[in-house]
Amino acid sequence: MVKGLALLGATGSIGTQTLDVVEALPEDFRIAALAGGRNIERLAEQVRRFRPALVAVRDAEAAAALRAQVPAGTEVVHGRDGLVRAARHPEAQIVVCALVGAAGVEPAYAAIDAGKDLALANKEALVAAGAFLIARALETGAAILPIDSEHNAIHQCLRGEDRTEVKTLWLTASGGPFRTRDARTLAAVTPEQALRHPTWVMGPKITIDSATLMNKGLEVIEAHWLFGLPGERIKVVIHPKSIVHSMVEMADGSFKAQLGVTDMRHPIQYALTHPRRLPSPLPPFDPVAAGALVFETPDPERFPCLPLAYEALARGGAAPAVLNAANEVAVEAFLGHRAGFLDIPETVRHVVEKLGDAPAGSLDDLLDADRRARAAAAKLLECGVKP
Amino acid sequence: MVKGLALLGATGSIGTQTLDVVEALPEDFRIAALAGGRNIERLAEQVRRFRPALVAVRDAEAAAALRAQVPAGTEVVHGRDGLVRAARHPEAQIVVCALVGAAGVEPAYAAIDAGKDLALANKEALVAAGAFLIARALETGAAILPIDSEHNAIHQCLRGEDRTEVKTLWLTASGGPFRTRDARTLAAVTPEQALRHPTWVMGPKITIDSATLMNKGLEVIEAHWLFGLPGERIKVVIHPKSIVHSMVEMADGSFKAQLGVTDMRHPIQYALTHPRRLPSPLPPFDPVAAGALVFETPDPERFPCLPLAYEALARGGAAPAVLNAANEVAVEAFLGHRAGFLDIPETVRHVVEKLGDAPAGSLDDLLDADRRARAAAAKLLECGVKP
Repeated sequence: MVKGLALLGATGSIGTQTLDVVEALPEDFRIAALAGGRNIERLAEQVRRFRPALVAVRDAEAAAALRAQVPAGTEVVHGRDGLVRAARHPEAQIVVCALVGAAGVEPAYAAIDAGKDLALANKEALVAAGAFLIARALETGAAILPIDSEHNAIHQCLRGEDRTEVKTLWLTASGGPFRTRDARTLAAVTPEQALRHPTWVMGPKITIDSATLMNKGLEVIEAHWLFGLPGERIKVVIHPKSIVHSMVEMADGSFKAQLGVTDMRHPIQYALTHPRRLPSPLPPFDPVAAGALVFETPDPERFPCLPLAYEALARGGAAPAVLNAANEVAVEAFLGHRAGFLDIPETVRHVVEKLGDAPAGSLDDLLDADRRARAAAAKLLECGVKP
Repeated sequence: MVKGLALLGATGSIGTQTLDVVEALPEDFRIAALAGGRNIERLAEQVRRFRPALVAVRDAEAAAALRAQVPAGTEVVHGRDGLVRAARHPEAQIVVCALVGAAGVEPAYAAIDAGKDLALANKEALVAAGAFLIARALETGAAILPIDSEHNAIHQCLRGEDRTEVKTLWLTASGGPFRTRDARTLAAVTPEQALRHPTWVMGPKITIDSATLMNKGLEVIEAHWLFGLPGERIKVVIHPKSIVHSMVEMADGSFKAQLGVTDMRHPIQYALTHPRRLPSPLPPFDPVAAGALVFETPDPERFPCLPLAYEALARGGAAPAVLNAANEVAVEAFLGHRAGFLDIPETVRHVVEKLGDAPAGSLDDLLDADRRARAAAAKLLECGVKP
């Protein structure tokens, strides 16, 4: 049976790779809806290739530009409402959320609310609003299938296992481009240096997060919501080659790991075809060629974003949403050469200290905490972070 | 609920470790029957500790010696019939077969025939008579749970997976004590050198098999019967530290591995408590302390027993039983300084060539092929193997 798919964030790294996977499985999937941002050229090309019934873009201007380039009969919508319409599209049974940042919270919630399975690459949605997304998914029966390679690996390892018999989740981290760099030189690193990720080709936001290890901190919080374990039972271990995508330690001491090549089309396909596994056109993994695999303990001194994320998870409530929002603003400032590398953890630390106890009784509370944290982070960066 | 357990091969390496596991889980298991060989002192001590209703020993003499040392009311039986009675003991729901060699075929079949779950450490039983053991287990509903660390690892990795979606099984091998040894010096190695296994503490027969890689060849055949894949989809990879106990490659290219410390009490406990996992008193595995993990391609030139096993599996019928029987005789001759290290593969090669097409239409046919292969191997070793 062909499954209808809505793809949110179609023109980004995960979005285009999702379309690669879909194109290789034409008898299994059909694109019902696409949502993109400002890259209208790429989106128009995707619309011509995949013929979705509906396309959502950022604003009215982009919508007008797109309409001129796509087949008649393609419905073009825009803004938040347009994104939510794509997420709730009646012809979609599965929604891939490949948006970046907390912007994904509302459409992810909409998809779950409509009872659709959610293939989630957008970890910030779970970090900011995990409690509400998970609770609603339990009510509607929507499955949440992680695309993040680490959580996808854990999902694979936990197939057929009793969740109450899991002792510890072990998230692997490449360590990023500054894994071995001297602490004293970290303040001076440039966005260009930070964007050179050693193992994965990804979008800019997640690549900077990988360099600060905030990405792994966000993943600890994501794992908490996906697999229901407290922070102290979710460990991070540096694994420079990113071959072992993550591991689980069971109650009896047995470890299970998922491993393979570093190509996001693998976890994307897994999430789309679950619970089935279909042949992949990608080159096979060769364990002999992989060379030596090692694991190291992360250094919380040089990478303070990791302990900051654990602290936010332990604090609970709005703290993770605030942490995430402050981080998004600081990363954007760093990418725009308006902040230094070490301003990222400092901004996050200050904003979480100030706003971490904001109300968190509803999804709106969390979205409000997110907005306030963004404003506070922007102000802090403008006026200078005091370490 | 307390499960009754019959333990065949109680005084060997796996047997004593099984009793360690049982002793640590007194609310889950109780020993219904024990079967041992000639080590009467150790068996008597085990009987006093675990109070089984029935004990089986090798012969009438051993039975008389044991009766003098155990509590009144303990039924002591002997010989093949005694072993089969232990395997069919009415108070046992699970039978651990930790016998060595094809001697385990009949009691393993008896346990399965009686509908009991079989925790199997005795790979030779499956190698010699896999078709009949598996077919009977399907009829009686008996589960076969492998204790061999590699197959146990694969069993763990395949939980929750569709068996038709398995592409390749990857058995890891330590490579044994002669992994890096020059081919020209292999003829001169002694039993004492071959018994120094780098990673696992095991009985003498399996340790020699590890040095020749015949152990891995037998495991390929065992994996064929347990998991239903042909030989060309069961690969062997050398992994000197024995941390990764084995891996599966799924249809979509994803690899799953099971890893941990090299302590057989882990797979034993897994097999006994399956499908549950219970806390283990053993020290936890630390992936950071494990150091670098590497995989290498095995060398069929220096270790011809491995390709011989693949060939026997491809030939089918009685060939694996003949291979196994010839190997058992050659290993015993090597351990007794009556044969050289390279006489082992030569003996196996000759005997399989001669008797590999023996009838294999029934369990009796296979047991007959086993006997004839033993006689042929003994004669060959006595008269000198001609390479």
